[in-house]
Amino acid sequence: MFQSRLERLQAELRRRDIQCLALIAGANLRYMTGLDFHLMERPTVVFFPAEGDPVFAIPSLEVPRVQKAINGGGLFEGPIYHYSDADGPDKAFEQAMMSLPEVERYAVEYLRMRVLELKLVQRHFPVAAMQDGGPIMDTLRLTKDSAEIEAMRKAIKISEAALQETIDWLQPDLTEKEIEAYLNIAQIQHGGGPLPFEAIVLIGDNAALPHGNPGDRKLNMGDEILFDFGTSYGGYISDITRTFFFGQPPSTKAREVYETVKAANEAGRKVAGPGVPCQEVDRAARKVIEQAGYGEYFIHRVGHGIGMEGHEGPYMREGNDQPLEVGMTFTVEPGIYIPGEVGVRIEDNMVVTQSGAESLTTFDRELCVIQPRNA
Amino acid sequence: MFQSRLERLQAELRRRDIQCLALIAGANLRYMTGLDFHLMERPTVVFFPAEGDPVFAIPSLEVPRVQKAINGGGLFEGPIYHYSDADGPDKAFEQAMMSLPEVERYAVEYLRMRVLELKLVQRHFPVAAMQDGGPIMDTLRLTKDSAEIEAMRKAIKISEAALQETIDWLQPDLTEKEIEAYLNIAQIQHGGGPLPFEAIVLIGDNAALPHGNPGDRKLNMGDEILFDFGTSYGGYISDITRTFFFGQPPSTKAREVYETVKAANEAGRKVAGPGVPCQEVDRAARKVIEQAGYGEYFIHRVGHGIGMEGHEGPYMREGNDQPLEVGMTFTVEPGIYIPGEVGVRIEDNMVVTQSGAESLTTFDRELCVIQPRNA
Repeated sequence: MFQSRLERLQAELRRRDIQCLALIAGANLRYMTGLDFHLMERPTVVFFPAEGDPVFAIPSLEVPRVQKAINGGGLFEGPIYHYSDADGPDKAFEQAMMSLPEVERYAVEYLRMRVLELKLVQRHFPVAAMQDGGPIMDTLRLTKDSAEIEAMRKAIKISEAALQETIDWLQPDLTEKEIEAYLNIAQIQHGGGPLPFEAIVLIGDNAALPHGNPGDRKLNMGDEILFDFGTSYGGYISDITRTFFFGQPPSTKAREVYETVKAANEAGRKVAGPGVPCQEVDRAARKVIEQAGYGEYFIHRVGHGIGMEGHEGPYMREGNDQPLEVGMTFTVEPGIYIPGEVGVRIEDNMVVTQSGAESLTTFDRELCVIQPRNA
Repeated sequence: MFQSRLERLQAELRRRDIQCLALIAGANLRYMTGLDFHLMERPTVVFFPAEGDPVFAIPSLEVPRVQKAINGGGLFEGPIYHYSDADGPDKAFEQAMMSLPEVERYAVEYLRMRVLELKLVQRHFPVAAMQDGGPIMDTLRLTKDSAEIEAMRKAIKISEAALQETIDWLQPDLTEKEIEAYLNIAQIQHGGGPLPFEAIVLIGDNAALPHGNPGDRKLNMGDEILFDFGTSYGGYISDITRTFFFGQPPSTKAREVYETVKAANEAGRKVAGPGVPCQEVDRAARKVIEQAGYGEYFIHRVGHGIGMEGHEGPYMREGNDQPLEVGMTFTVEPGIYIPGEVGVRIEDNMVVTQSGAESLTTFDRELCVIQPRNA
């Protein structure tokens, strides 16, 4: 698998007349090598030339892992330059980069590479022109194969099962943090891996914070409760949002907000399909919210790509005319946030199919009033 | 608290004749503001001028959180420039940076800032000189106050309780991944927060990989098992490593390796104290391993600082002559890794005291043969 990905990458580099792509720890490097390095203070870079073997510049303590991956994990071979903590990275990077074919144009990940690695790379490519490697990796990663989609489907099933267990368990006086802990445990018990992001559990008007953190707010009868969370399976991510009402039906206004978001979510999902520009998904959902008079309270794009990362391309936002293709995976997650009052978001994970788009998320979207477990 | 940290930072900036420090999402920004932003594709920067109010350049959807922190969370005030997903960040960054006092020298976090933010910052500071802001933040963060140390102590207690429960539960045929899941759940149940890094659970000769990932290897009688993991409490981290033998006493060689690492750990802990250069901690532990004939198998420094991050300054490595000060916190974690054979690491979290250094980690370090739960 890694050999064929390497061939696809090198063909893309040659097509763009770029002689080298440098990847640091993160999803792109994991996609290319299966290696899951920590992003820490020790610079760790793999250089992918347009022709020939990739070159590793890594800390010495990572050498055994890389050797193991080459010897038994299906990883391609390539020279390994490494450095000890006492020596530091300069010399290893110089040797690694000197071993590469001549480079006039190279690419690094603008969304990932830090000044730390950038300075090392620029020192040894002093005259070559630099550009963003993100779009190059996107051409490889944007459309998912069936194994990738199955992994996402599995991650979503785990999250949905954990969500059902958590709402079945709710009772008054639980805090956001306690509910988050229960949800996290349920995901692990169902086989979920590392969390792609910290779960958001927000009660009452806290739900009007799109990126709020769970705190000590307690659940009371009549509160709304918003969950935005996910897990991972085989390195692929789920990301689901549902908003519920606890113990009592919502107010007329909250119900109207909920039904508007639900209709916007549906409109976004329905419009997606092969050839449809990403911004049309945003527009379809946004139009529903604007027509209901809540446009000013929908303060983010309608979705983002999803796969190995919680956020990746393609982005469902105004101004992105990139056409959707079969196998692309993304979220549809419109929301309405009225400060101090109510916040509703409904988020699904989609995959583009020949005939439109399928929601991998199947958890019910109808307005739901949860009854306390001990009621 | 944030106001006094701001004053300390601004005094440090003036002392160094730096007019502005730019911080992105991460531990430094959390230390300065309490805000825990996701590091994602939307650039999020707070500019700290040497005089006057900090300036926020953030995505619109983060504005409610920042306002809430200013209005009720003790955060200092400052102008907020924000951008929508449709508009993108350019204009907001231009306005934010134009509002700053004149800048001749500025600092960014080399270990954190990405090319994404760097390009935005350089565009609007085209002639000012850039330097690394890491050392500036280190002067604030390196020595911990009593509240920070208590949070670390709490995180360590959670990890130790979870480790004890996990080893009490072990039985043959459990996989590394299953044991990792049990450990993760136990930490949540004891009140642990977000994981600072994925737990390492390695069985048999897998333990010879210093940064191996848990897989499907099954536990058998006579195996060794290495745990390297941590949790967080109130934003502060634990990081502990212990190595056990399962069901049967170790071979003579494995026992010798274990006792050597234990002695090296003790030597490193004993030598630490106020005024002692960091490299002396490394040397003291390394000398024990070298004298036992295993020097070539100890392939990393003996420790790193710890606090809000899994790895931070000060680093216990050859070449670092920085003197330890009261309140600094760091790890001592010597290891011996003989490929295909045995790997042992013993790691404690230390705090420098008036008279030496205290191990916040109290879990027993004596060689331990775990008996299966159902034996």
